Amino acid sequence: MLYPEPIARLIEELTKLPGVGPKSAQRLAFYLLNAPGEDVERLLGAIQTARERIRYCSVCFTLTDTDPCAICANPDRDHGTICVVEEPRDVIAMEKTREYRGVYHVLHGTINPMEGIGPEELRVRELLQRLANPGIREVILCTNPTTEGEATAIYLARVIKPLGIKVTRIARGLPVGGDLEYADEVTLAKALEGRREI
Amino acid sequence: MLYPEPIARLIEELTKLPGVGPKSAQRLAFYLLNAPGEDVERLLGAIQTARERIRYCSVCFTLTDTDPCAICANPDRDHGTICVVEEPRDVIAMEKTREYRGVYHVLHGTINPMEGIGPEELRVRELLQRLANPGIREVILCTNPTTEGEATAIYLARVIKPLGIKVTRIARGLPVGGDLEYADEVTLAKALEGRREI
Repeated sequence: MLYPEPIARLIEELTKLPGVGPKSAQRLAFYLLNAPGEDVERLLGAIQTARERIRYCSVCFTLTDTDPCAICANPDRDHGTICVVEEPRDVIAMEKTREYRGVYHVLHGTINPMEGIGPEELRVRELLQRLANPGIREVILCTNPTTEGEATAIYLARVIKPLGIKVTRIARGLPVGGDLEYADEVTLAKALEGRREI
Repeated sequence: MLYPEPIARLIEELTKLPGVGPKSAQRLAFYLLNAPGEDVERLLGAIQTARERIRYCSVCFTLTDTDPCAICANPDRDHGTICVVEEPRDVIAMEKTREYRGVYHVLHGTINPMEGIGPEELRVRELLQRLANPGIREVILCTNPTTEGEATAIYLARVIKPLGIKVTRIARGLPVGGDLEYADEVTLAKALEGRREI
């Protein structure tokens, strides 16, 4: 055994974090051992406070410390347009564009039959309940352009369209700043298919 | 403000960790919020236990949960050879080679006049005290091949040599699996200088 047991255990726990390999776990462990006590206390306190205070919004299911969340509670947002995303982090990504003024609905995953995740494992029923409100004019499907994200969007379009609500899907195409030469063929085909007159 | 305050604060604290940028801090924060309670408890417990139980070895100053550390307490190690390294992680790197049978001395840094770090800020006095033992035959200077590491090695060689103890420096050269074409000129010059007959 190379490390004293408490360090080995700390490295093992840190390796379980997403994106943390053995080398960065070792680096983090030595940092956490040598850092001033107040720095470590502040980090541990922030983890505990966040876990205690953060809940899912009972309307859109994003992470929030108020219920409903700041977006759902904001009268200046367009509550007739719902953007459906996979995860709370996608809400942040959308908000960073500063282009979207509607509200959200977080599914907390995608339909994935291989892993036994169907619509009932996601917040789909809650979405359909929201759509019973006659004020809803449009649902924008913003799941990721992956196989599962596409399958989820196709499924949702099929169940929402019969309700007489406009259903749209975010555009697939070349990323801004991207290069035609390096784009994969599926992206390029989608970009061609989605071409617009200028 | 895009994030609820407790999440923003958690991300801010996580960004202070070494090697963690804004994107990975966000990823870690969402993981820590969504992970099962027992997983997070185990991580926080491992941090606290390690901080409580890990101390510096009173002989070699590496991190340890026993005093002296397992290496200093091991009668099968060669206590006449001391390998001087900058940090506890360097002890682990050396141990992983399974080639070294001597003991260690951890300086906890390098001499760096620009940042006001002189020999008195490092564990140099404690090293010289250990060298008073007549059983010590060799000191291997294993500080990093950086400007500060070299300066520290040169300084230590100058103070240890007059004690009549053999002082050596790890070889600088091409890394195994490296490519001559991509080696920097200083490394290449050192490799040439350190050439051996085969």
